[in-house]
Parts: sequence; structure tokens; C-alpha cells
Amino acid sequence: MDALLTSTDFAAAGDCMYRQIAELYPICRSITGEGFRETLRCLRGRIPLDIHEIPTGTQVFDWTVPREWNVRDAWVKSQAGEKVIDFRRSNLHLVNYSVPIHRKMSLADLRDHLHTLPDAPERIPYRTSYYKESWGFCIAADELARLQDGEYEVCIDTTLEEGALTYGEYYLPGRRSDEVLLSCHACHPSLCNDNLSGIALVAKLAELLQAASLEYSYRFLFIPGTIGAITWLAINELQASQIRHGLVVACVGDSGKYYYKRSRRGNAEIDRAVVHALSHSGKEFEVREFSPYGYDERQFCSPGFNLAVGSLTRTPHGEFPQYHTSADNLDLVNPQALAGSLEMYLQVLRILESNARFQNQNPCCEPQLGRRGLYRSLGGLPDAGQLEMAMLWVLNLSDGQHSLLDIAERSQLPFELVHRATASLVEHELLTECTEPSLHNIEQEIAT
Amino acid sequence: MDALLTSTDFAAAGDCMYRQIAELYPICRSITGEGFRETLRCLRGRIPLDIHEIPTGTQVFDWTVPREWNVRDAWVKSQAGEKVIDFRRSNLHLVNYSVPIHRKMSLADLRDHLHTLPDAPERIPYRTSYYKESWGFCIAADELARLQDGEYEVCIDTTLEEGALTYGEYYLPGRRSDEVLLSCHACHPSLCNDNLSGIALVAKLAELLQAASLEYSYRFLFIPGTIGAITWLAINELQASQIRHGLVVACVGDSGKYYYKRSRRGNAEIDRAVVHALSHSGKEFEVREFSPYGYDERQFCSPGFNLAVGSLTRTPHGEFPQYHTSADNLDLVNPQALAGSLEMYLQVLRILESNARFQNQNPCCEPQLGRRGLYRSLGGLPDAGQLEMAMLWVLNLSDGQHSLLDIAERSQLPFELVHRATASLVEHELLTECTEPSLHNIEQEIAT
Amino acid sequence: MDALLTSTDFAAAGDCMYRQIAELYPICRSITGEGFRETLRCLRGRIPLDIHEIPTGTQVFDWTVPREWNVRDAWVKSQAGEKVIDFRRSNLHLVNYSVPIHRKMSLADLRDHLHTLPDAPERIPYRTSYYKESWGFCIAADELARLQDGEYEVCIDTTLEEGALTYGEYYLPGRRSDEVLLSCHACHPSLCNDNLSGIALVAKLAELLQAASLEYSYRFLFIPGTIGAITWLAINELQASQIRHGLVVACVGDSGKYYYKRSRRGNAEIDRAVVHALSHSGKEFEVREFSPYGYDERQFCSPGFNLAVGSLTRTPHGEFPQYHTSADNLDLVNPQALAGSLEMYLQVLRILESNARFQNQNPCCEPQLGRRGLYRSLGGLPDAGQLEMAMLWVLNLSDGQHSLLDIAERSQLPFELVHRATASLVEHELLTECTEPSLHNIEQEIAT
Repeated sequence: MDALLTSTDFAAAGDCMYRQIAELYPICRSITGEGFRETLRCLRGRIPLDIHEIPTGTQVFDWTVPREWNVRDAWVKSQAGEKVIDFRRSNLHLVNYSVPIHRKMSLADLRDHLHTLPDAPERIPYRTSYYKESWGFCIAADELARLQDGEYEVCIDTTLEEGALTYGEYYLPGRRSDEVLLSCHACHPSLCNDNLSGIALVAKLAELLQAASLEYSYRFLFIPGTIGAITWLAINELQASQIRHGLVVACVGDSGKYYYKRSRRGNAEIDRAVVHALSHSGKEFEVREFSPYGYDERQFCSPGFNLAVGSLTRTPHGEFPQYHTSADNLDLVNPQALAGSLEMYLQVLRILESNARFQNQNPCCEPQLGRRGLYRSLGGLPDAGQLEMAMLWVLNLSDGQHSLLDIAERSQLPFELVHRATASLVEHELLTECTEPSLHNIEQEIAT
Repeated sequence: MDALLTSTDFAAAGDCMYRQIAELYPICRSITGEGFRETLRCLRGRIPLDIHEIPTGTQVFDWTVPREWNVRDAWVKSQAGEKVIDFRRSNLHLVNYSVPIHRKMSLADLRDHLHTLPDAPERIPYRTSYYKESWGFCIAADELARLQDGEYEVCIDTTLEEGALTYGEYYLPGRRSDEVLLSCHACHPSLCNDNLSGIALVAKLAELLQAASLEYSYRFLFIPGTIGAITWLAINELQASQIRHGLVVACVGDSGKYYYKRSRRGNAEIDRAVVHALSHSGKEFEVREFSPYGYDERQFCSPGFNLAVGSLTRTPHGEFPQYHTSADNLDLVNPQALAGSLEMYLQVLRILESNARFQNQNPCCEPQLGRRGLYRSLGGLPDAGQLEMAMLWVLNLSDGQHSLLDIAERSQLPFELVHRATASLVEHELLTECTEPSLHNIEQEIAT
Repeated sequence: MDALLTSTDFAAAGDCMYRQIAELYPICRSITGEGFRETLRCLRGRIPLDIHEIPTGTQVFDWTVPREWNVRDAWVKSQAGEKVIDFRRSNLHLVNYSVPIHRKMSLADLRDHLHTLPDAPERIPYRTSYYKESWGFCIAADELARLQDGEYEVCIDTTLEEGALTYGEYYLPGRRSDEVLLSCHACHPSLCNDNLSGIALVAKLAELLQAASLEYSYRFLFIPGTIGAITWLAINELQASQIRHGLVVACVGDSGKYYYKRSRRGNAEIDRAVVHALSHSGKEFEVREFSPYGYDERQFCSPGFNLAVGSLTRTPHGEFPQYHTSADNLDLVNPQALAGSLEMYLQVLRILESNARFQNQNPCCEPQLGRRGLYRSLGGLPDAGQLEMAMLWVLNLSDGQHSLLDIAERSQLPFELVHRATASLVEHELLTECTEPSLHNIEQEIAT
């Protein structure tokens, strides 16, 4: 994992993720249907994704897998025969999950089915109606203002039929059966930051980790929001208990600062790892407490699961003005931001991968580092070096109770330095790794 | 209790409490005697008060019920026969519990028995000498300055005899035998804020709660300060263990901000309920740590009892300049302040009454609120509504460990909203109330 | 101990410590050798010190007691025969533990063995090379600049032979076998603040405590830094477990503010006692978290011992510009600073000595203090006195769980007042001392 961080060409990875977003941008996705399948097929070019199809009507906890929705076309024509609203120009025009309709109506009647953004009159909003049969169009308020009174022909050529909910999953085994979950929602149509950026980042992480030597097993999920997480959890109820750490990935392509939303547990190892990585990144960031609103951490952190799943994003949902509008387009995201997000995720995973506990083999007093060449020989200087300090901290706290992250937090040294000092001490047989999980840590997490 | 908050005419209740204070103001109260009895008889017009008489000499823990003190008259006459100090003009003139005396003496000798307030020369101080036989007068420093040298006739026509300590008690049973204690000291003579305001508020609360459907049983005490609390606790040592929550009520009639003094436990449910109510009241307030000085919380929080009893006041004792002087009169208190205090107390009691724990019946993932009409059907909007957020929080934390107050605190939502969301979820059978007390909460309180 | 604080003439004690420093200043100390022995012999004039000799080659945990180093002379002569560097002018000139050498060499070659302080060109640095065979001289950069090119004669007439490591120890028994450790390093040559000030203060403390009635047993150590602490711990591995509290004493003679470095446990009783003493001293101070760098607390707080040992200093090592230079001389330290440090140490020891737990004999309600003459008889006054408040706090919290330090911390009253109130209550049989250690406190410390 250390090697991955130093060997990855992040600029190239950023470009690659951006191209991935551009490739997926035109597809009309929803929580079910061909758009979702096509998206997964694109990703299969990079990673050996399993594509699962869960039939309409399957009971998943309190929910039911809905009918599959597909769109052939959708438009509104003026009396003059001009398509004043056209799904083919932007798939956001059609309220997602609109039922089929073909009829003529006055502008006054049509208005009840039109959604606009009066405060951003040039943007098309994104609206859905998954669980209530309904139809509608979304248009720029400026466009609506230009429409003349008169009769319009409305055509929504969609199907809502028995079919399946589709999701993509890639399981990458590591040395331990404990899992790290990386999950993104892939159900939004032409919207880049939310959440094509998340899709591209998870796919890139999966691609990179394939080449690494891994402690944990990794599970990458590309699922429709809410119903997809519920479906996966319902089908994998037992498997879910293997998830030790998880992150919900979304909104990672804009240039805003980082935001971390803690898991419901509040101070789980994943929470501490992310906060540590952010704190030592030199980047601007903000940490927020868990709230049961947001993305699929809502489901992963429901009380029946209470998984240690947080969410690391850039500007959070609902807080950038382009959110859920046609302005969340290819201009909002950029390769540099994507590359930065990727590196931050790898920094977090590196901590998880290396966060072991060690036992000082000379716990009584300090071992003589000098005769092992680990400590300068000239005495009397006012300061110790950074690496020497890291070695002293690791030796002092390696009583089998403190993990390297515990040590990094208490010493306020970067995890990377603590890890490097540890490697050196292990090499000189001054430390041995503990194999049993620390009861201390487990109890701490359960108590919260 | 919710109904009580919405149906009570607080303006009228404020007027009523003010009139009660005005009615009780002229009576000369002490820790024993006819003034205390007369006060209780006045209150009996509103609430079915039990009046207890504990004989002089009764041993109550380390103390002994003192002799009963009564006053017929007290004055100081000049040589010219003018009453220069007259108990009938203000009962504060007589040091409370003064022994009888009738003699002539020089002004010089009399001075040793006169108490004044040099910094507030127009006010009469309030002084007592309950446990040391003594006599004295309190007068305005300005009045003292006007006294001529010469001989004065001093008459204190009091009795200190075998009798009783009197207190009033009203027990209002609720569904549970666990009790909420509301206690006030009623031993001060003509002093309005300290503590006729407390007496009036406790009486009004008792009157209002009689009409409510109550979870807890309520105990209202009108007792002489210190010795009354000690006496009640000594007689009711076992009964005291039923007290789950309590508040000592005093100084609730002035226009100052609210002060809450925590119980000795520091973060008991009553402490959290009051702090929550204050935090969401929009009013100015200050929270203070427990200290073993103050009113009868000193006794309720003594280590042998350690009851969860705090004290919610407006300006605390000793911190308003009129404290324990003749300026603590009918001008210092007002109906609006009394009404506000009453409402704050009811807000606190509402929290205690409703602070149950619930079990989410669909703990794995969120239940589908939309198909129950509990969640908007149109998707894509940036925010959830306040009530939707409250429902999500209640569902997320209702694992049998978290009370509604826990949820309100963590979500930073007002208890009332959390409670309303809970009611809605219970109605839809998504929650059931836990019947066993949460070990989690009990341990938390014990640990402090 | 209270008596000691009031009876000690601190001004005289400060002068005495300063004279002690002046007496020891010229001696060339090292981690072994005659200079260390001579230092201990000087101290033996005041306190009955045991002088231990641990033979070269003794294995002490991961270390080996080194050969003994002694210096007869050391100098560098110019071609003109002038001693341009002369050990007899300042023992700092010779790198401590330099091996013997006698040869001629060019200035260019000599330079590799010369240490200077370019940023403080008038000062001689202090350097050591204990564990790597090497030789060198330390000189002022200004002096070096004045040296002419040419040949120099270098003579280091030292011996590095089988011998011993010497340390001084004084054990002063108290009523309990639990120990308080006061340790200082005594291995530095002519350097006053670091650490002749520490030596003088520990010796003075030992001298004063001999005359006191002591609860704890006290152990005073005068040891070479690092290797001395390791040696003592290796030889006294079991005895070390008797150490309940400890302080490493150094840099206590300058006029800087106080610094306290917490023990590894972070909030042990010694940590709380020092922080309390500092907080109520009216002096400027700063508290720092434990770090595994510094003086011998590094060894006492190694994970195999984890003793409750902190370090109370004035300006810490490395943070005053004169540190480890010839400017750490008799001008840097002064009697007033030494006296202040001594008093602060005594304040801390007073807390440890008196920090018992008590049981309120009247736990139900307050006892009647007034009839015992412990409480004013006149009622109605706005405040209680300070001592009355302390008595109320002690009674309220003396449930067998809270120590006097717990009570002082919670009440924010000075320990001395709490202690005085306690004595008064014990005298009136209202409190009895608990004999068993509080499980509560022990668990608290272990948990950290």
C-alpha cells in the first residue's frame, strides 16, 4: 500500500477518472433499467465486476424491489410541432420514473407537471418519483417563461415493467476475511459530481488495489441509492458483519475542501483514520458528526447493522449550488480534484492496512538504539530527530494496547512516520506484532 | 402534559401567582409558628395540601426540631413614646426567632442589637437567629442615623415554646410510583422573590398537574428551609428513594435570566432535561455546577441521599441587590416573569414525562416511510423537512439504549419535535416503547 | 508537612542551595568517574547518602554499564607552545568520554574534532560521546576564528577503564512503605541550571524532610542520566513497584515560569497534585503532555514500569538559550528562583501526604455545624465564609470515594483550605479517615 502511494501517477489517474466521467455522462441512469446496466458494462472494462440482477417484487426488509423503468423517448411539442422539451437534449428533462403518457393539454394543465428552479432560472432541476406513480418534466425557468399559451402534445414513452434491480460488486480478497467497504450510488443520470465522480473514484481504487498486497479484503459496490443499499444488505445480511470499515464515496470531483461525515459510532477506527489523514494532509477540511440523512451510510448505519461506515466527500450533497441541476456537469468536476480525492482515499486505506499493535520486546527502560545505529552518537544536542522521536513513541506505547494510529494520535506525528519507525524497530527485533485484536480497542468502539 | 402546555393561559396564570404572592406577603413566617400555618391554610384553597406537625424536640438526623416561635408584637419606643421601630410596619424589623425582652436601655446599648445595611441605607435587612438565643432589630441605616441619643424602651413580645414544626405536602399519584419532587422553602417573612415566588409557582404547578394524565407521581413540598428538608428526609428516609428527579424552586418571580444549578450527580436526567429545555427556549440562561451551598438541594444532595435534585431559578440567592432586604417586595416580582418561569418548569416536566426509550421494529435499514405517507414522494430536493429529520433520528437511535432525550441531544432537535416524530412512528407501528429501564442510562448516572 | 511549609526560611534555603551549586560547579562530572563520586561526597555532608558502585560490564536490561572515564588533563597547544584550548579553564572544552590521544596535527585535521555554536559564537557547547569511541573539543566559535593555520599539539590525558558506575541514594522511611521518588541526574559537568540546580533542590528537600513526620517513604536518587536510571531500575526492579508518585527534578534554578510535564499515565495523582499546586500558586505555569523524550522520566515511564513520574521544572531543557553551553553558569541561576522551586515542590508533597479519603459520619443531610461552633449563628447573610464552604464541600463529597484532592478540584478551593476544613471536621468527629484505598481512584488511574 505504501508502494501504491509512491508509485501511482496521480495526475494521470485524475485524467483517467475524468475521461471515465465523460464517457458515462450521457447515459440516462435510474435506480433500475438499461442505463444502470450500461454503466456497469463500461466499468467492466477496468475491473472484474459481478453484475447482479434482483427481480422486481423481491422483498428487501421493509421495501420491495420496484418495477424496472426504461425510457425510449420523452418530449413536449408546441402546436407548431417544435419539441420545446426534449429528453434527447438532456435526460434531466424527464422526471425519473415517470409513467408513460401521450396526450394533448393546455399549458396551464401542463404546468402542474413542470419543475423549475426559480432561483437558478437557466438550470434544469433533477427530480424523481420512484415510489409514487406520476409523470413530469424538469425545465429551466427561463425556458418555461418563453412558452406561449396554447395546446401542447406531451409524450413520455417509458416502460415500468417486471424486470430487475441491477447492481455491480467486486470482491477483492486480502489476507484477512475482514472487509473494507467502498460503496457509491450509481443511479443518477447526467450529473457529474453527484455521483459520476464517486463511480470513477471507486472504479479507480479497485483497479489500483488489484495490484497491491492487501491485509483486508475489499468490497466495491456500485448500487442504486437507498433501494440498492437496502437490497444488498438484505441479500448479504450475514456477510455484512465482515465489514470492519467502510466509506460511502460521493461528490469527490469538485474543487471544494474535504468533508468527512463520521459513522454512527462516531469514533470508529475508520473515523479516526480519516480524521488523521485529513489532519496531516495540509488540505482544508471539515469533520461533521453522523446524521441519519445523506447517502447510503443511512442504511449501513441503521441500528440493526451499525457498521463503521462514514462518508468522505468534497462539497457535500445539497451544499454546492449546482447540486441536482444541469449545472452539475463536466465543468464542475476536474482531474486535479479527482486525483486529490483519490490520494486522500489511499492515505486512509494505508492507515487501515498498517494499523497493527506491537509489543515492545524491551519494555523495561528504552533499548539502546545507538548501538543498533538507530540513534545519533553525539550527545548534548537540544533536539531529537523526527524519526528518533517516532521510534521513542512507538517503543513507549507498544504495550500491546495501543495501535499505530493510537500512537500517531497521541504523539501528533504523521502515521506514515510512525509506521516507518515501526518497520525499523521490527527489523531490529525490538518489536513484534500482536496477533490478537486488542480488547481495549474493541470495547472502546462498542461503548460508543 | 403536551395538552397542558398548549391549553394553559400563561398570562392568566402569571396574574394568579402574583395575586397569591400579594395575599401571602403580609404574613410573618418563620421556620415554625402560626405564620407558616396560615400560609399553608391559604394554599389549601387551591390544592389538597396535607399539613404535618412535627413536635418540638423530635430528633431529625443530627438536628432537633426547635421550639415554636410566635410573635405578638415588637417595638422600640423613644423617650417621647414614639415607636421608632415597629414590627407591625414591617415584620423584617424583628430578627427572626428573637427571644422575648422588655426593658429600657441607652441607644448605645441598643446598637449592639441593631442590624443595618450601610451600603443600602434605605433598606431593612432580613436576619435570623434560629439556633442561638438572641434578640435584635433590623432597620434602615437612614432610620438609625435619625435616632437621638437617650433611653429607649424595647419590647419583644414573642414566645419560644414547645410546639411543632409545620410543613405542607401534596402527593399526586401518577402511573408510576417513581416520583418527581418539587420543593420550596416557605419560611421567609415579607420577602417576595425569595421565596413567595417559589411558593406561588409550586402551588400553581400542583394545581395544573392535578388535571393532567401523569406518568410520574409528584410530590410538592412547602417546608421551612434547611430544618424542614432535614425533617422531611428524616421522617421519609425510605420514601425518598422513590424520588427519581427533583427541583428546588426559588426566586422565580424577578425579570432576570434563568439559572440552573445542577444536582450533585452533575448530569442526571433532570439536569439534562432542564439544560435541554433552556437551550431550546430562546431565553437567556446560565448553567452552574453543583455546590453544597444554596437552598434545600444541600440536604437532598447530601451524600447519604444523593438525590437527582437541581434548582431552577431566575436570579439566584444573594445575586440580586434586593436579596434578603425589604426591597424584595411586590415591585421586584411581576406576573410575566412568574408566567415564564411556570412555562419553563412545565417544559422540563414534559420532557421527564415523555422521555421513554423505543425499539425500532425495522432496525435493518430505514423503513419505507413514503408508502406510509410519512415522507414526501418527490425526490431530488436538497433537504429533508424538520419532522422527517426527527423521524430519521428516532429510527436510527431507537435501539433500546437511547431515550428520546438522548436523541434530542444528539440530533440537536427540540425534544418536542422528537417526541412528535416518535408518536407518529408508534402510530404506524414502526416503534414500540421499551418497558425495562435502560441499563445504559442507569449506569451512566451511577458512574457520575 | 504543613509545619515544614510554614517554618522553612525559604530565603535562607535559596541562598544555601545557591552556595551548594557554586561548590559543585567546578567539578568535572560524567556518567562515571571521580567527578561523580566527589559530587556525592559533598552532598554527604548534608544527608546520609548511600553511595553505590556498579561494576563496568554489568548488564542492565538492554544496556551494559560502560567503562569508567577519568580525566587528568586535556589541552591543545599552538606551535608557539600556548594552550589555545585548556580543560583546566573549562571542563566543557573536552567532549565528555573522549578517548586518550596525544599527537600533532594541522588545524584542518583538528577542525573535524572541534564543536562550536555558530549562532552563539562566544559560548562553549557541551557535547558527549558516551557510547561511541571518539574524541573532541568544544570551543567558542570566536576562539576558533582566532586560531592560525599551522600544526597543533593535541593532548587528551583520559582513562577509559574497568571501574564502576556510581550513584547516590537516600531512603527516608515514612509510615507507609509506598514511596515518593525524587530523582535528578548528576552527570553534567560545569552546568548550573541543568542540573546542579536539580541536585541542590533534591538535597535540600531530603534535608528538610528528615525533620518531618511523613506518611510516605521517600527515595532520593542522584544518578547519571539515562544509564543511571536504567541501572537503578534494573537493580531495583521489584522495589520500583513501591513507587506511588515521582518527580524528575531538573532546571529549577532559572527565573522562568514553571513547566510540568505529565507522567505517561497522564492524570495520575502526582499529575493532579502538581497541576493543583501550580494552579493555586499565583505563579505563571504551563502544563504539557507526556512525551518519551526528556530526562529520566523516559525510563521510569517506559511501558514495562509505567510509573507515575512526571517532571516539574522551570524553563525546560533545550528551551533556554544557555542550555548545554558555558552560559549555563552561576549567573543563570539565582537563590530566589531556587527558593520558589523548593516551595512549589513542598506544596506538591504536602498534597500527596494529606490526600486521604474520609467518610462523613452524618451522611444524611448536613450535620448541625452551628451548635459545634463551626458555623456563624446569624442567618440571612448572602455568603458563607471560605472555610465554611470548604467544610460543606468536604462533608458533601466525603462518601469514601473522593479524596481531598478530588474535593479541592471539584470545589476549586485550594487544597490547603480543604485540608484545614477536614482537620476541623475530624476533630469534631464528623469525619473519619478511610483506611482502604479507593477502588474508584485505582481504577481511574489504571484506565488511563
